[in-house]
Amino acid sequence: MQHDRAPATNDTRLGAAVMTRLADLARFSADPDGLTRLYLTPAHRAAALQVMAWMEEAGLEARLDAAGTVVGRCEAAFPGAPTLLLGSHIDTVRDAGRYDGNLGVVAAIAALRALREAGERLPFAVEVLAFGDEEGVRFPVTLTGSRALAGLVEPAALAARDRDGVSLAEALTAFGGDPAGLGSLARDPASLLGYLEVHIEQGPVLEDAGLPVGIVTAIAGASRLAVTVEGRAGHAGTVPMRLRRDALAAAAEMVLAVEAEAIGTPDLVATVGQIEVPRGAVNVIPACTRFSLDLRSPSDAVRRAALARLRATFDAIAARRGVAVEAVAGYDQPAATCSPRLMEAVADGVGRLGLPPLRLTSGAGHDGLALAGLCPIAMIFVRCAGGLSHSPAESVTEADVDVATRLLVDVLRHLRP
Amino acid sequence: MQHDRAPATNDTRLGAAVMTRLADLARFSADPDGLTRLYLTPAHRAAALQVMAWMEEAGLEARLDAAGTVVGRCEAAFPGAPTLLLGSHIDTVRDAGRYDGNLGVVAAIAALRALREAGERLPFAVEVLAFGDEEGVRFPVTLTGSRALAGLVEPAALAARDRDGVSLAEALTAFGGDPAGLGSLARDPASLLGYLEVHIEQGPVLEDAGLPVGIVTAIAGASRLAVTVEGRAGHAGTVPMRLRRDALAAAAEMVLAVEAEAIGTPDLVATVGQIEVPRGAVNVIPACTRFSLDLRSPSDAVRRAALARLRATFDAIAARRGVAVEAVAGYDQPAATCSPRLMEAVADGVGRLGLPPLRLTSGAGHDGLALAGLCPIAMIFVRCAGGLSHSPAESVTEADVDVATRLLVDVLRHLRP
Repeated sequence: MQHDRAPATNDTRLGAAVMTRLADLARFSADPDGLTRLYLTPAHRAAALQVMAWMEEAGLEARLDAAGTVVGRCEAAFPGAPTLLLGSHIDTVRDAGRYDGNLGVVAAIAALRALREAGERLPFAVEVLAFGDEEGVRFPVTLTGSRALAGLVEPAALAARDRDGVSLAEALTAFGGDPAGLGSLARDPASLLGYLEVHIEQGPVLEDAGLPVGIVTAIAGASRLAVTVEGRAGHAGTVPMRLRRDALAAAAEMVLAVEAEAIGTPDLVATVGQIEVPRGAVNVIPACTRFSLDLRSPSDAVRRAALARLRATFDAIAARRGVAVEAVAGYDQPAATCSPRLMEAVADGVGRLGLPPLRLTSGAGHDGLALAGLCPIAMIFVRCAGGLSHSPAESVTEADVDVATRLLVDVLRHLRP
Repeated sequence: MQHDRAPATNDTRLGAAVMTRLADLARFSADPDGLTRLYLTPAHRAAALQVMAWMEEAGLEARLDAAGTVVGRCEAAFPGAPTLLLGSHIDTVRDAGRYDGNLGVVAAIAALRALREAGERLPFAVEVLAFGDEEGVRFPVTLTGSRALAGLVEPAALAARDRDGVSLAEALTAFGGDPAGLGSLARDPASLLGYLEVHIEQGPVLEDAGLPVGIVTAIAGASRLAVTVEGRAGHAGTVPMRLRRDALAAAAEMVLAVEAEAIGTPDLVATVGQIEVPRGAVNVIPACTRFSLDLRSPSDAVRRAALARLRATFDAIAARRGVAVEAVAGYDQPAATCSPRLMEAVADGVGRLGLPPLRLTSGAGHDGLALAGLCPIAMIFVRCAGGLSHSPAESVTEADVDVATRLLVDVLRHLRP
């Protein structure tokens, strides 16, 4: 079998085809001037039908599962072989870019189509999955499609409501899904080879390194907290500095402590993305300040130790300033480690393309977080301009998409069940 | 003439009468469950009519001037004598306390009533003024009543509109004022002895010192700025700390720099009362942060030097972090110094009450800011619980109000034209 070597080819037909379809798919949007495609909305349904059509054209047998995930299956050369799962998600954030999620679905279909056109059969079945709830924007739940495959959806999740009061169960039914059928989506781990996803990096590491693709070693775990500092209100003109208990000044110290903790701790990032002084006024000393905290690490131990240190630092700052602080833990997602065997299979493919195998962690969450408990997972990251995502300015090059798709074809060709 | 000495009397009838009237006056409110009385509203008009009735009862000749200020005049014992202005304001913030402003008006009427009941005539005329626009809540202008007396109201101010689109001119006309007559309210400085106002401290200094009243030396000047920090958005999970340009982290450093500047500078207070990350999300590195800055000092030189140092510090923080900062100056009010002669007259009265003459500055703005350019000004501060104001929890004691009112009676008795 002859394999391409990335630097040696000017043929980027695979990449061009994927880019054209990504442009086509971006038209399915709730927003005529941008891309907004939330879970189980009409825009999502239209995009799902388009993806099903492309799957059928590529020789896959396509269907919509009970959670609204598009599933396209290609049988193995021999009956009874295990299944490799490919894919990503086709829901988006509001005012999104066209590559986040969609790239992994379209590239997987293109790879299988290329193999079919070459007349090649694989010694394992393949299913391409187009999940619908990776961004978690519409409902206060997320990863519903992938969690269902892992048997992780709690019945209570069906009662979650969007901001218009529509429940997940109602939205699923309207979409053509089946709320009662979520439980039966759980897969048998013994039937699965693993899950491999192509996704834009959403960060600047590949661009910094000058490489089109990278091999993900782990998806970071994340802790989110809501922090409230309670001080004492006062007139901005009349209360001497020494008598103040300024909630915002205390919070500002905490924000800088968060930044210092992350700078000083390898494999940790930490972000305060939101802050407010409720009912704040220019001439009133803040009585209260609220801020969000997001901590991520590929190591759960690193993340938990940093969180414990930050809690202690917050308490010390509050005690010194005579204010109260409460940090309420919300979302807590353990990290997911990628499969050494699948990582090696990807690294071998990267090597055959003539590229160095750059390994990096994913700071963003992905469906692999839910699937890691079900089967081995791996991810291929694709360089994106400026590390930007969740923005109309999200951008990848046709050449990089071509490398990623050819890499996927190559890995499929070499993988053994 | 016999004078009371504060510690030697259990007779607090004057204070009790003032407290009863303050409770009565607090019923004139736009808000049935609290006290909200904005400039030129029906609640303001009703309160103004009540104040006029009390003035007439105390022997003053009461009228409403073109700016909606209630003016109650008591002639001097001899014709041609100059006029001492007393008073404060009867407008309030939303959900206000009942003492801010109202105390100074009610106490002044009570003092003149006490002198009249004692059969005493003064060698100068007195006017009690109940201003209506000290809080500046309704329109984007403030101190309209006192500025009119000082000849400082620009014709353009009449076009200022409240949030319902009603102009100051329209509201004045509906109230019974006269937009066209504002210019003719300007007083002749030669006709005035000065302006003396009783007001709650709105700060904790008197409480801290254990004293019922204090002598104001100056009303602080104030600078207000709107600061915007522009960084670079990014995914909270994927952008390494070293590649971030976090607008909020930079702003947090600036907030602490503001606090440090004020702690390190005598006669300066500085406050960041509002902060926001526009369109901030828990998982997005802040691209932008906006915050307010309020700087006050009884010394304009101190305030301006501090502001210059803070601007330089902001620029240095921004340059080091690779973000942009813009600090736009808004409200800028020079300080007003109190009259040495009037301060001494008050201090003599405080001494006759057997109390030490505590001198302090006013960090809050008052009508005296506008009147300082017209005539000598002075203020008597009254202790308030916890330094709280602009809140239903605002509180003063009957005993302290009694001291303040007797002090006012005493100062009036001893003042010579």
